[in-house]
Amino acid sequence: MVFAKTQPNLKLSGERFSVVYNILGDSKEQIMDRAQEVCLEQTVELPLSLVPEGVLRDEVVGQIEDVDYSSAEGRATVKINYPVETTGTGLTQFLNVVFGNTSMQPGIQVVSLHLPDSMLATYPGPRFGTAGLREIMGVKERPLIGTALKPMGVPPEDLAEFVYQMALGGLDFIKDDHGLANQIFHPFEERVERCVEAVDRANRETGRKCMYVPNVTAPIDEIRDRALFAKQAGADGLEVSFGLTGMDAIRLLAQDDDLQLPVISHPALSGSFVTSPTNGISHRVLYGQLMRLAGADGVIFVSYGGRFAYSEEQCQGALQGCREPMGHLKPILPLPGGGMTLERLPELRSFYGRDVIFLVAGGLYSPSPDLLANAKLFAKMVVEADSAVMEQA
Amino acid sequence: MVFAKTQPNLKLSGERFSVVYNILGDSKEQIMDRAQEVCLEQTVELPLSLVPEGVLRDEVVGQIEDVDYSSAEGRATVKINYPVETTGTGLTQFLNVVFGNTSMQPGIQVVSLHLPDSMLATYPGPRFGTAGLREIMGVKERPLIGTALKPMGVPPEDLAEFVYQMALGGLDFIKDDHGLANQIFHPFEERVERCVEAVDRANRETGRKCMYVPNVTAPIDEIRDRALFAKQAGADGLEVSFGLTGMDAIRLLAQDDDLQLPVISHPALSGSFVTSPTNGISHRVLYGQLMRLAGADGVIFVSYGGRFAYSEEQCQGALQGCREPMGHLKPILPLPGGGMTLERLPELRSFYGRDVIFLVAGGLYSPSPDLLANAKLFAKMVVEADSAVMEQA
Repeated sequence: MVFAKTQPNLKLSGERFSVVYNILGDSKEQIMDRAQEVCLEQTVELPLSLVPEGVLRDEVVGQIEDVDYSSAEGRATVKINYPVETTGTGLTQFLNVVFGNTSMQPGIQVVSLHLPDSMLATYPGPRFGTAGLREIMGVKERPLIGTALKPMGVPPEDLAEFVYQMALGGLDFIKDDHGLANQIFHPFEERVERCVEAVDRANRETGRKCMYVPNVTAPIDEIRDRALFAKQAGADGLEVSFGLTGMDAIRLLAQDDDLQLPVISHPALSGSFVTSPTNGISHRVLYGQLMRLAGADGVIFVSYGGRFAYSEEQCQGALQGCREPMGHLKPILPLPGGGMTLERLPELRSFYGRDVIFLVAGGLYSPSPDLLANAKLFAKMVVEADSAVMEQA
Repeated sequence: MVFAKTQPNLKLSGERFSVVYNILGDSKEQIMDRAQEVCLEQTVELPLSLVPEGVLRDEVVGQIEDVDYSSAEGRATVKINYPVETTGTGLTQFLNVVFGNTSMQPGIQVVSLHLPDSMLATYPGPRFGTAGLREIMGVKERPLIGTALKPMGVPPEDLAEFVYQMALGGLDFIKDDHGLANQIFHPFEERVERCVEAVDRANRETGRKCMYVPNVTAPIDEIRDRALFAKQAGADGLEVSFGLTGMDAIRLLAQDDDLQLPVISHPALSGSFVTSPTNGISHRVLYGQLMRLAGADGVIFVSYGGRFAYSEEQCQGALQGCREPMGHLKPILPLPGGGMTLERLPELRSFYGRDVIFLVAGGLYSPSPDLLANAKLFAKMVVEADSAVMEQA
């Protein structure tokens, strides 16, 4: 064997993290074969016959920890663990070990991540989280009221006027639509300055705190500059589409002590990971656990029942990932959006609970031509929907 | 209407780029409805009823240019064009307009991109391309012989010895396995220095030029430092897994005049875009057109017939995207890999043609315990497979 004599010249810590995969197969035997392939593919990337005995085979290669065939015929959930040393340091190589080459296998899906505390400790995680965001907005318990600033193409002064009216109407949170980048229609710097001025003016009038969060998704060597500009201009947070920039851009922004701003992730271009029922990454992992490892304080995802096709089960998964215990990593706020209407708020309140920012955009612009009145209506309906649920409880 | 009076305060250029989508639907009417949704979703992200008449509705919103129902029942290819101004400048927002939110729609797939020359001119593209890589390796016409350096976990001195033997045996191209990051097993800097020394030593003995290309996939604020270290150490190129770092990392490396090194892209974590038959991005676009826009000189993808499940048609798509005319953007080298064996080289040569680097790793390590002999065998078989095809022609 080519590699017969080679071995790591060090002792591994023995600490391992686990990934639960959903694996399809025609038989239990085939599922186990596929699971064994994952153990190899995600580490040494060699057939077992070429992996030398000793530490490489016994420790570096992934190990099947548990198999559960009970969910349905032709599939199993398989828990595989890997030594923490395989991930080096950092999110990029962690993602690689979790799903790098296996992303190219049909019928294999990442269901959940399980990291030992020693490994979680290496990720600073969200700086603000749910409690921090609530503190900024000054809203202790009720669900939060948010929107996306649209549409692409209109002048910055008009966008700023929309911000003013919506903040005045009672919204807690306004973020750039993810399509507002640095186009000539509304150059980034002018847009941010005008919108910050508008939200500040409204906040002075209301005595409340509505956040304005610009989109800093950009070429990777410009992201930090845009974020610093936003910070200096007085913006209240930073939105980034990790599918466009790479997930590590969230970490870059979240950990930056010169910024110290909440980071809100947007799902643009991440859809192909969650759209196939049999390949990809679960909502719980993609829009929950990984966002918290990266350091997002809020995560936008598409709600069930809107103009996209995700299920209630998938959205529950995102909630779980945002809220479940993960060592020292703070819980973060889910921001469901994507075709939600005001009429659905009672139902959405029941489903998403209180720690949520309802992201309603098209549905906020539709009821009347008066944006201020629409914002007031939205704010009133969220409060009413919340009261109704609380009274029932 | 809320937005009745707002309009861009400038005149658009009229230049538009097109995206061909494959769209599933129960009827022609439904497919057209879905196509119209894409036009809105990828730009103003509002229902048509909320888009004011004038430039916004007439120019900013995407426009259906062509519909072809002929491919199969229940689907159509739909060509949609967008104003170049929507993409601002840069790859991240271009990706956003092409497929950002629509990535979350099942049954919609990006098939091909069509950019006007004025827009292509804003992308520097590959610095070396096929011709430049051939010039570095000193191989004018025959297919190139490459491998991935493995496995994760072995000491740098052993990896360097593998490099030495494989270069001595006649390989043209050796790249780090994408799983070699900066782990304690083989820290990046020590690994690169040792492997560069080994490949240089072999090259002095053979009088030929085998490239050694380290993996610089890393946290996004460390990528450039690793690349600069690799450059200074004498490495011949840079490998980056764009699924882990974001695609813009390729552009960052390719355009850097302090580096001026070939960039080779790896498909780790990109699989979910190409694994569903009905959602995602075609091989032609993901592993061809987009790689050239980003500036990769070579693109690794998984070949049909190996341990992954991609089809010949998909691999032909990747070849097309690497080689088809795209304004001033150079053609680039495909590097098919992923479970190819030496026995298949005659077939693979017929399929992939001459402008290709055959990436054989497990298949190179298997024939005997003697890596030098295996490398010689691999090199001999590629040359023989090439001669056989050329004689038939």
